[in-house]
Amino acid sequence: MQKSRFVKDIKEGEQVRELFLVAGKALLTSNAGKAYLSLQLRDKTGPIEGRVWDRAEEIGKRFDRDDVVEVSAIAIAYQGRVQLKVHDVRREEGGAKDLSAYLPVTRKGIDPLWKTLQGYVAEVRDAEMKRLLSAVFPDPPETDVARRFRQAPGGKTMHHDYIGGLLEHTVSVAGICRFLSTHYEGVNADVLLAGALLHDIGKVHELSYEGAFDYTDEGRLLGHLYMGAEYVDGICKSLPGFPPEQAMVLKHMILSHHGELEYGSPKRPKTVEAVLLHFAENMDAKVTAANDAIGELREGARWTDYQRMFERYLFSGKFDK
Amino acid sequence: MQKSRFVKDIKEGEQVRELFLVAGKALLTSNAGKAYLSLQLRDKTGPIEGRVWDRAEEIGKRFDRDDVVEVSAIAIAYQGRVQLKVHDVRREEGGAKDLSAYLPVTRKGIDPLWKTLQGYVAEVRDAEMKRLLSAVFPDPPETDVARRFRQAPGGKTMHHDYIGGLLEHTVSVAGICRFLSTHYEGVNADVLLAGALLHDIGKVHELSYEGAFDYTDEGRLLGHLYMGAEYVDGICKSLPGFPPEQAMVLKHMILSHHGELEYGSPKRPKTVEAVLLHFAENMDAKVTAANDAIGELREGARWTDYQRMFERYLFSGKFDK
Amino acid sequence: MQKSRFVKDIKEGEQVRELFLVAGKALLTSNAGKAYLSLQLRDKTGPIEGRVWDRAEEIGKRFDRDDVVEVSAIAIAYQGRVQLKVHDVRREEGGAKDLSAYLPVTRKGIDPLWKTLQGYVAEVRDAEMKRLLSAVFPDPPETDVARRFRQAPGGKTMHHDYIGGLLEHTVSVAGICRFLSTHYEGVNADVLLAGALLHDIGKVHELSYEGAFDYTDEGRLLGHLYMGAEYVDGICKSLPGFPPEQAMVLKHMILSHHGELEYGSPKRPKTVEAVLLHFAENMDAKVTAANDAIGELREGARWTDYQRMFERYLFSGKFDK
Amino acid sequence: MQKSRFVKDIKEGEQVRELFLVAGKALLTSNAGKAYLSLQLRDKTGPIEGRVWDRAEEIGKRFDRDDVVEVSAIAIAYQGRVQLKVHDVRREEGGAKDLSAYLPVTRKGIDPLWKTLQGYVAEVRDAEMKRLLSAVFPDPPETDVARRFRQAPGGKTMHHDYIGGLLEHTVSVAGICRFLSTHYEGVNADVLLAGALLHDIGKVHELSYEGAFDYTDEGRLLGHLYMGAEYVDGICKSLPGFPPEQAMVLKHMILSHHGELEYGSPKRPKTVEAVLLHFAENMDAKVTAANDAIGELREGARWTDYQRMFERYLFSGKFDK
Amino acid sequence: MQKSRFVKDIKEGEQVRELFLVAGKALLTSNAGKAYLSLQLRDKTGPIEGRVWDRAEEIGKRFDRDDVVEVSAIAIAYQGRVQLKVHDVRREEGGAKDLSAYLPVTRKGIDPLWKTLQGYVAEVRDAEMKRLLSAVFPDPPETDVARRFRQAPGGKTMHHDYIGGLLEHTVSVAGICRFLSTHYEGVNADVLLAGALLHDIGKVHELSYEGAFDYTDEGRLLGHLYMGAEYVDGICKSLPGFPPEQAMVLKHMILSHHGELEYGSPKRPKTVEAVLLHFAENMDAKVTAANDAIGELREGARWTDYQRMFERYLFSGKFDK
Amino acid sequence: MQKSRFVKDIKEGEQVRELFLVAGKALLTSNAGKAYLSLQLRDKTGPIEGRVWDRAEEIGKRFDRDDVVEVSAIAIAYQGRVQLKVHDVRREEGGAKDLSAYLPVTRKGIDPLWKTLQGYVAEVRDAEMKRLLSAVFPDPPETDVARRFRQAPGGKTMHHDYIGGLLEHTVSVAGICRFLSTHYEGVNADVLLAGALLHDIGKVHELSYEGAFDYTDEGRLLGHLYMGAEYVDGICKSLPGFPPEQAMVLKHMILSHHGELEYGSPKRPKTVEAVLLHFAENMDAKVTAANDAIGELREGARWTDYQRMFERYLFSGKFDK
Repeated sequence: MQKSRFVKDIKEGEQVRELFLVAGKALLTSNAGKAYLSLQLRDKTGPIEGRVWDRAEEIGKRFDRDDVVEVSAIAIAYQGRVQLKVHDVRREEGGAKDLSAYLPVTRKGIDPLWKTLQGYVAEVRDAEMKRLLSAVFPDPPETDVARRFRQAPGGKTMHHDYIGGLLEHTVSVAGICRFLSTHYEGVNADVLLAGALLHDIGKVHELSYEGAFDYTDEGRLLGHLYMGAEYVDGICKSLPGFPPEQAMVLKHMILSHHGELEYGSPKRPKTVEAVLLHFAENMDAKVTAANDAIGELREGARWTDYQRMFERYLFSGKFDK
Repeated sequence: MQKSRFVKDIKEGEQVRELFLVAGKALLTSNAGKAYLSLQLRDKTGPIEGRVWDRAEEIGKRFDRDDVVEVSAIAIAYQGRVQLKVHDVRREEGGAKDLSAYLPVTRKGIDPLWKTLQGYVAEVRDAEMKRLLSAVFPDPPETDVARRFRQAPGGKTMHHDYIGGLLEHTVSVAGICRFLSTHYEGVNADVLLAGALLHDIGKVHELSYEGAFDYTDEGRLLGHLYMGAEYVDGICKSLPGFPPEQAMVLKHMILSHHGELEYGSPKRPKTVEAVLLHFAENMDAKVTAANDAIGELREGARWTDYQRMFERYLFSGKFDK
Repeated sequence: MQKSRFVKDIKEGEQVRELFLVAGKALLTSNAGKAYLSLQLRDKTGPIEGRVWDRAEEIGKRFDRDDVVEVSAIAIAYQGRVQLKVHDVRREEGGAKDLSAYLPVTRKGIDPLWKTLQGYVAEVRDAEMKRLLSAVFPDPPETDVARRFRQAPGGKTMHHDYIGGLLEHTVSVAGICRFLSTHYEGVNADVLLAGALLHDIGKVHELSYEGAFDYTDEGRLLGHLYMGAEYVDGICKSLPGFPPEQAMVLKHMILSHHGELEYGSPKRPKTVEAVLLHFAENMDAKVTAANDAIGELREGARWTDYQRMFERYLFSGKFDK
Repeated sequence: MQKSRFVKDIKEGEQVRELFLVAGKALLTSNAGKAYLSLQLRDKTGPIEGRVWDRAEEIGKRFDRDDVVEVSAIAIAYQGRVQLKVHDVRREEGGAKDLSAYLPVTRKGIDPLWKTLQGYVAEVRDAEMKRLLSAVFPDPPETDVARRFRQAPGGKTMHHDYIGGLLEHTVSVAGICRFLSTHYEGVNADVLLAGALLHDIGKVHELSYEGAFDYTDEGRLLGHLYMGAEYVDGICKSLPGFPPEQAMVLKHMILSHHGELEYGSPKRPKTVEAVLLHFAENMDAKVTAANDAIGELREGARWTDYQRMFERYLFSGKFDK
Repeated sequence: MQKSRFVKDIKEGEQVRELFLVAGKALLTSNAGKAYLSLQLRDKTGPIEGRVWDRAEEIGKRFDRDDVVEVSAIAIAYQGRVQLKVHDVRREEGGAKDLSAYLPVTRKGIDPLWKTLQGYVAEVRDAEMKRLLSAVFPDPPETDVARRFRQAPGGKTMHHDYIGGLLEHTVSVAGICRFLSTHYEGVNADVLLAGALLHDIGKVHELSYEGAFDYTDEGRLLGHLYMGAEYVDGICKSLPGFPPEQAMVLKHMILSHHGELEYGSPKRPKTVEAVLLHFAENMDAKVTAANDAIGELREGARWTDYQRMFERYLFSGKFDK
Repeated sequence: MQKSRFVKDIKEGEQVRELFLVAGKALLTSNAGKAYLSLQLRDKTGPIEGRVWDRAEEIGKRFDRDDVVEVSAIAIAYQGRVQLKVHDVRREEGGAKDLSAYLPVTRKGIDPLWKTLQGYVAEVRDAEMKRLLSAVFPDPPETDVARRFRQAPGGKTMHHDYIGGLLEHTVSVAGICRFLSTHYEGVNADVLLAGALLHDIGKVHELSYEGAFDYTDEGRLLGHLYMGAEYVDGICKSLPGFPPEQAMVLKHMILSHHGELEYGSPKRPKTVEAVLLHFAENMDAKVTAANDAIGELREGARWTDYQRMFERYLFSGKFDK
């Protein structure tokens, strides 16, 4: 079955028979004591709640969180929002054919971003660095890591929280680092670019994104800094003759890119390249989040809602003419 | 008189008759109870100590800190260093003809940097912003502020601590901001560039640099953030019809460019342009300091001395081949 | 029309036709899907909610937040509180004749406080300081700043959050500083008193208080410390022959009166007078807030609610006899 | 023997036979391998070093740190300072007749300060509070605590570090609190004044001041906050019928007067009186230290040395006319 | 009357006539404007809400918070929970015969824990320390302090928040300290054990636990560190000949056991025994809280809810086999 | 050649011909302008300075820091210390036969500690954990890691800074953890013990200890937390069938054992075993340092010097009887 109607287009009173991703599932009891199934459904245009009032338990056993399901329902209004009163649910075998139908996706396009990234790899002059980058980012992306790297979000909620967000963030940081290696003397351009491309590679397994974005056990216990450095260590060791000093310097950049111990880096940046990467990375996360917040402002509004990442309100800088 | 010999070339045993800047002066008593005059002398190649043993008090009255003086002396070795045993000191009327003979100067050249800055001003499309920038940075630099801006150091000890350092830092930050306004969507390029060029304008009067670099009373009591915003406010008010919102946004960028309250900004960055300026400014200060520290490393050394600005040792990243 | 009945006197079941200030306005949809207008109305005795169920959109276009409106309604009980079910709303042309009918006002009286302030000004012996203070606080208060200074609240929510609060706080701080200049030797009494009277002058434009108290754009982007110092700078420059050192010292006191960088002062207090002002100012804000919290305690209660300003509960110290 | 000549009057070349306090004593070995006795001697005008070169060990056994000794010596110059080359040392039996000959003393006079304090006690209206204060501060001061209270310094190095400093600080804080209880409504004047007078009573045993000021074991392990509260608890329990709530509130004021946990208060101020006491106490310590630092400035100097208590330089505010 | 049915066993639709503890009481008004009495009732198995709709005011006057009452009611379902619709309430004279029927109790048993504690006391070799411990912990527990010590909770909400929690925590900490005194050389085993047994003795009066756990006025104003040290001081002074140095060292351990000033210790640990006690105490609080959180996990769940004490989620470490 | 005389036994005036470790080497110039070689020599009993005045440059080229050399010299007194005036230096081929002759060594003996560790390994019941531990700690210690683990210091300066210090610390922490796994329910004893034994394994390559203790490049750039986890990851992957969840949990313990991000852990402890390990590890470091400081006190002294690790002075707790 193909998905044809999307959450944002569903209106009160309509009959709905459509595919959704299950982002949450809970068996609850109403005030009147009746058991019902509450479903968090979603597609790429946003979330919608569904409630199953009849055969709640039986239907609830047919599928799990992160499955794709076909829902038969009628759309009703509840507390000012549209909600689905669900008659039936069927699990779609094989899951999502295309995850991007169910989750938000980078506006910049995964393929164009991937092409930019490959262009950066092609610019690297140091043969060893290029060999390493080609191993991590083969084109076409035939490894599991490369495939996940193209899909993974950049974060759970804070910034770049959409499919392809990790790729978008990585390409942006690499672009800044590329500029900085020409702006400053004495910078090892190849090391800086390689560090930029690899710095968040650990996120490939830190977050699961097959349904709602969430941290994996490994992500919570070890974190993407460690996971990225360990991964790069493994790849470097698998490349015969790869210089251990280069591996050490790259692992240092990955571990230190949060800049300060209290932000989770076990070591702070100690090379010029690590210092630059930290600034570029931090700036990209912040500016993207600020731009997103300002971009969502209603017409005429000058101040955003309170931004937890910044612990402040942001100003659009747009004045009425 | 012309300066012809420099500190770094003076050798033990030589007779010296040369111009120096007086960076410090103190009347002390030797262990044997004898009064002597201790002078901190310097030129662009560095500092040298001078001691006057005869007529110390009388000679000491002839000049002050920050004067240029002609010193007659013999070079001796003391505790492993060359020192001047001074016979006579004469104050040079009119002071330094060329401050850059006595103080370290930006390696990039004041005139080339100034030209780059003027090029940035020329790129500004908004007529009001261009009018403001031309008022602050007239070419040729015929105002007192513009003249001081070309000479002032970027800081007392931490970074860009040399003649022209403020200009060098400003041009570098502006160059980064120029790149960033193309890298990110939704950035007001003119506001960002103007903010970058004006962000440290308050340093023109925060530091005195006619002799040893030091803070002025005003610099210590008000600080360059306040002084810069007050100065820009005055210029904007002197330009008929300058939009007050634009003045407000620029003053906000100046006040917030240290990024956090604890670094002396009374407000944190609240516009995308202010966020970007803060990152660019901070990165330029840090990377320049790191590059300077690594550049001073002896041949073969891989780790710098302890860097107070970073609270850590820095690694050159250079491996023996 | 004159206001005659106040929020605290309105009882369930009564017909109401009265003037209120609009502190908030929102067009919402009920659970049943019906659009209605929710109004935050208020007068000096407190807030009351009003809901317009018929012609909600049409009526909502007649007025804005911060307007004074005549409301026709019936008082009903809703969730244990009195609410207005509104039939009609009419905008009062010309707004509030007397703001103090609609907003809480200092218990100490604006005129008596103003008189005390003028008495302090009269005590100043230094002619220049007196000239400056008379320019800022002319009697009668014929300038815009002086008029706003008499009305402005001391803060949005934390302390002195009522009409005349800024004046009350200023007079109290000045009174403490007056005592301290006799208590300690070596204090410049005129500078300390002038600093006390001017320290929060920037709040005149930091907060808007024509309706619900709120920050202005300028207040959020520049803050009252900067705005106050810039304002005093302008006044000093407009007084021929005003000594620049005195202006500098006063601006330092204004900028530093929050005491620490992390509380928004770009410089910390560096003169005895600035140190004293900071303590007096901080103490007055805290003690007033503590007294207000304890004053609101129910009969017999010994502990206040959690006080965010103090991050603790406060104790009345009143024991049952 | 009477002391007749003081440290500040001793000049190079003079024969000296005079009483001094021993503030330090160490048996050292010279570069040449010879044992000698190094003495830190002092009187109220300051410190002077003495060295015993002959019979060092034997002479060293005659006295200890904090003894008063008669020293026979010749004054010599060493490293620009006057030093005593000591021939003989004799311990003065019975120690100092008058400690104030050997240690710096409050400029305000112990007896006048004590009289002011007694005046404050007399003003207290609550009979129980007055009973308590009379027990702690009997006039004449016939208890050990009262006698020590009149002599003790206010601190080891930070502020009020002289004989009578504790008394001076206490009287000043009480004077401020007396003013504040009239300035603010709702303050319990008797409780505030009693808290002010008792707040540092624990310092009576926290510091030893019979020689060089130093902390006692108890002072280091328990601190003057605890010691003061425990002492007041004991006194209150010894007064039949003293209301336990009043004791509790006073102990709270003593324990909380440092204002924040990180400054050593196990509880933060939770009553209006405790809040006021904290501000008054902190202000008095800071302002006294600032005034002392500025008072020591050389003629014409505008900035003090770096002040560790303030972590900044202080400005005299004195301009050349 | 004996309690026979418990909260966790009450089911929808049942008639209930049973004893409960009143943990909260409030007279509220329903949305429909009707006054009703909302009761927080509880027994050892947990809390249940009760509502009195008829004669609410009259019935509400019969009893207070912390009373034991006999409730006549019918159990209904409300918002998915069981609630009591109450017909009548009668105050039980004499309160709880056995507090442990109404409040959660340590799983380890008060008597077995007390016996272990007495065994530790018996092991102490120093006669003075044993005399002190026997005075504080007499067996049988015939003093008020000993009786309260056996019942008191270890904290209000954070850890050991149940009847006997203080005893359980104390015995556990003492057990760890007993091991550590054998593990490390140079530890005074008697002092360490005595410090462990006494460290939280101040909690006996810091918390009231006759109904819902809450802080006393004294607990909030002085805190259990001060109260414990003052109490031990009193006991030591009542024991003729008890060495004051030992009292001082124990009081230091009590005051410093939170380890850092910011956690409320007015002095940090300065003896090896105080350092060890701090670690043992802190570890026991944290590990007990972590074990409790993990113990409450649903079957199969691997991560706990967010733990405020840890500011993180905890991992069970249990993997599916 | 065998070492026969030790630093602490060398006396002024003696002829010396002995082996020492070179802990430092610098070519300096005397005040008189003469070049000389300053050597930091040491053996297990401590450091001694040596100076080569003749043929300084030539002799300086024969050896490097961390070499063992035979020194021919005469012992002289200089500034109260014994110093070697060196005639000749010869490099000992093959370096130290026994490092423990030249560096301080654990008082507990490397072999006994190793035996205790093997006993702990033998106690492990989980076959996989035992397999892992046997791979890391083979007995006899035939791997490079095991050999280094037996020799490495626990730290550079802070605690356990002697040969065998890492082993001593590890065994002590494991002993505490062994006790704690019996003291608390619900602890996985095998995981806790394995984590304790492996927690500092990364120190094997973080510090170089062949001469003076110092950090390696890898140690400074990656740190022992990362290095240890990466090493354990490698070993686990080399053991066929080792459960990845167990490896993950152990790596988490290693990464989190510093407890807080600001102490260099990229993740904080999230399992009960990780929480326990953190406390045991931290306590052992602190208590050992405290015991060492107190152990070094002179007879009769009650307070140590200022301890940087504790930021305080420590009290011996020993009273004169």
